[in-house]
Amino acid sequence: MLQFAKRTELLKGSEIRELLKVATQPDMISFAGGMPAPELFPVEEMRESAKIVLRENGRSAMQYSSTEGHPPLREQICRMMKRRTGLDSTPDDILITAGSQQGLDFAARTFLNPGDVILMETPSYVGAVNAFRVCEPVFMSVETDDDGMVLEDLERILSTTENVKLIYVIPNFQNPTGRTWSLERRKGFMDIITRYEIPVIEDNPYGDLVFEGEMLPALKSMDPKGLVIYLGSFSKILCPGYRLGWTFARPDILAKFNFMEQAASLQASTIGQMEVAKYLELYDIDKHIEEICELYGSRCRLMMKLLDEHLPEGCSHTYPKGGLFTWVVLPEGMNAKALQLETLKHKVAFVPGGGFFPNGGHENTVRLNYSCMPEDKIEEGIKIFCECIRDFSQ
Amino acid sequence: MLQFAKRTELLKGSEIRELLKVATQPDMISFAGGMPAPELFPVEEMRESAKIVLRENGRSAMQYSSTEGHPPLREQICRMMKRRTGLDSTPDDILITAGSQQGLDFAARTFLNPGDVILMETPSYVGAVNAFRVCEPVFMSVETDDDGMVLEDLERILSTTENVKLIYVIPNFQNPTGRTWSLERRKGFMDIITRYEIPVIEDNPYGDLVFEGEMLPALKSMDPKGLVIYLGSFSKILCPGYRLGWTFARPDILAKFNFMEQAASLQASTIGQMEVAKYLELYDIDKHIEEICELYGSRCRLMMKLLDEHLPEGCSHTYPKGGLFTWVVLPEGMNAKALQLETLKHKVAFVPGGGFFPNGGHENTVRLNYSCMPEDKIEEGIKIFCECIRDFSQ
Repeated sequence: MLQFAKRTELLKGSEIRELLKVATQPDMISFAGGMPAPELFPVEEMRESAKIVLRENGRSAMQYSSTEGHPPLREQICRMMKRRTGLDSTPDDILITAGSQQGLDFAARTFLNPGDVILMETPSYVGAVNAFRVCEPVFMSVETDDDGMVLEDLERILSTTENVKLIYVIPNFQNPTGRTWSLERRKGFMDIITRYEIPVIEDNPYGDLVFEGEMLPALKSMDPKGLVIYLGSFSKILCPGYRLGWTFARPDILAKFNFMEQAASLQASTIGQMEVAKYLELYDIDKHIEEICELYGSRCRLMMKLLDEHLPEGCSHTYPKGGLFTWVVLPEGMNAKALQLETLKHKVAFVPGGGFFPNGGHENTVRLNYSCMPEDKIEEGIKIFCECIRDFSQ
Repeated sequence: MLQFAKRTELLKGSEIRELLKVATQPDMISFAGGMPAPELFPVEEMRESAKIVLRENGRSAMQYSSTEGHPPLREQICRMMKRRTGLDSTPDDILITAGSQQGLDFAARTFLNPGDVILMETPSYVGAVNAFRVCEPVFMSVETDDDGMVLEDLERILSTTENVKLIYVIPNFQNPTGRTWSLERRKGFMDIITRYEIPVIEDNPYGDLVFEGEMLPALKSMDPKGLVIYLGSFSKILCPGYRLGWTFARPDILAKFNFMEQAASLQASTIGQMEVAKYLELYDIDKHIEEICELYGSRCRLMMKLLDEHLPEGCSHTYPKGGLFTWVVLPEGMNAKALQLETLKHKVAFVPGGGFFPNGGHENTVRLNYSCMPEDKIEEGIKIFCECIRDFSQ
């Protein structure tokens, strides 16, 4: 009998990734997953970028390169963050990772001993929970409302809990709820964590996808002590297939992440980094992001309208101003996993929300994605979804 | 003051990767690193493969895909392993990883609790030590000679040591020594570990690069209990820039690795996998590997000849029959790190061998790489290297 390490007992496959195998069947209307709309991928532009990279620097592109990442890509990222988010950084502040998921893994391994406490929003991204779980922490959920973490609850927990080593937040268009922290809440949050000196992961894969209102300042821009570990990603603003993200953090933290990356995978793909850097050099990603926002915005508004019209009484949902997701709360006692079995029979997929609560419960919640289905499918799918809820209530 | 997790105290940057920053300066003669010869990279063929993938399946290539890996790539890997190594597998037995380095990380996290024992050859690959160290194991070195691990020492350790949870070996053209296990030693090793039921990582990045003699059977082919976790890699037979490797293991182990991958980075690059699968479909990798073997073989023979001629008395070196490395033992008491400072002044880089011993010592050893320098540089560099040793002895 093989003996596996203790940490493996805590790990299970993501229900979402399992579900995606079903949800990606061609006849399925899928509100599951967090997939960007493939019809917007700049395929031509990436083909051109690949051609140039392989023509001009083919050998370098296929060789090993530094763990820090391809220097021109790190420069482009700094410029992009400055231009779009107002964040000041230099290439030395940036580490390229295999998606921002790898940044989550490195953060966990850099800060969490078994039994240490990590604080999260309620609910929070299940993939992050997975990354953290490998380090065997205690998860504590901070009460969260439409404006972000509830500061009184955060303060209460920090003042009464030992060994809080890390806080994980998604301030913009959160996964799974679609909610965004208010400016006031951001400031209050940073005041508190600066006082307690707790490192914070600011996971920001969706922040650029604004379709209503202004982009709010990053926590990283209000961070006098360098406590914020900012994670960026190309997955939602360009495409996820290259597995490229980045970490922007202060030097001592970044050095630990760099060691972790050497141990974990040596470096991100050289050729992938060079091709994406070439894309950023040759094309206008801001314009591309505008197109994404336009499409997602109209899909989101349609889904909101349909939910308003068809969701049975006793249900509620969020009104995202950006990002990929909305969050539905079903009547108390209704089980979203059971509902899912029903909607799948009608070829409609979504993600039950219970999995987004690391300590369980909340089985009457649902995450819906609106980014990757065309409008007619959204219309058809939401009607079926709401009918199934109605049937289920009876 | 930030508090880092305990495991971070054990981690340091790889001296090799630090050294590579110096060693890749254009005027440097580098025997450091384990870089494949870039002049052999099939740049044209990869450009063609990329073009086709982005033309025919651009959207899928840029999208998320399954953690297991791109099915056609897994099929190609099975066929390649069967054809070249005689190993029987199905695509379900294969998990694609971000280089085989990621397989090392997953193996460590799947099997090692803090304080558990991992056995390794003496010396062994420093990048593996790094991957394992994150899990805080106790490293034990098994006596190793030119035919592989010394079985009496292995048996002695297994019969007297508790909590041996993993054994790490590179049976073919080992990093750093270039040594290869004999057939008899392979059989004896598998008899022992099958009796004790200890999982074994068979790391095989170099096994295809044979330039003298026959390829010997993989440990995985003598594994009735499914204890062997076989790690393959495209880094040395195609190129490292895509960061693609694979794990071939029995289903329960592979399932744990899959969960680890979901937590660590979700999946390997979709586009990278599709491009490499396309290359394998369109081109003859066996012929490509033959070309690699021819070039490395002649570089290796040249280096052997030069070392035989110029190495001062009191030094010895291995005679690799494949792979990328030879191993030099300097006179007792000579410090290779100090020697390196001297050779670097003369623009010759190598890796001091001490770092390949997880428990320290052996500072009078050197790893030399012969795969990525042209013959005139090998000639010039080895002469300088040997002169520096001579100066140093005086």
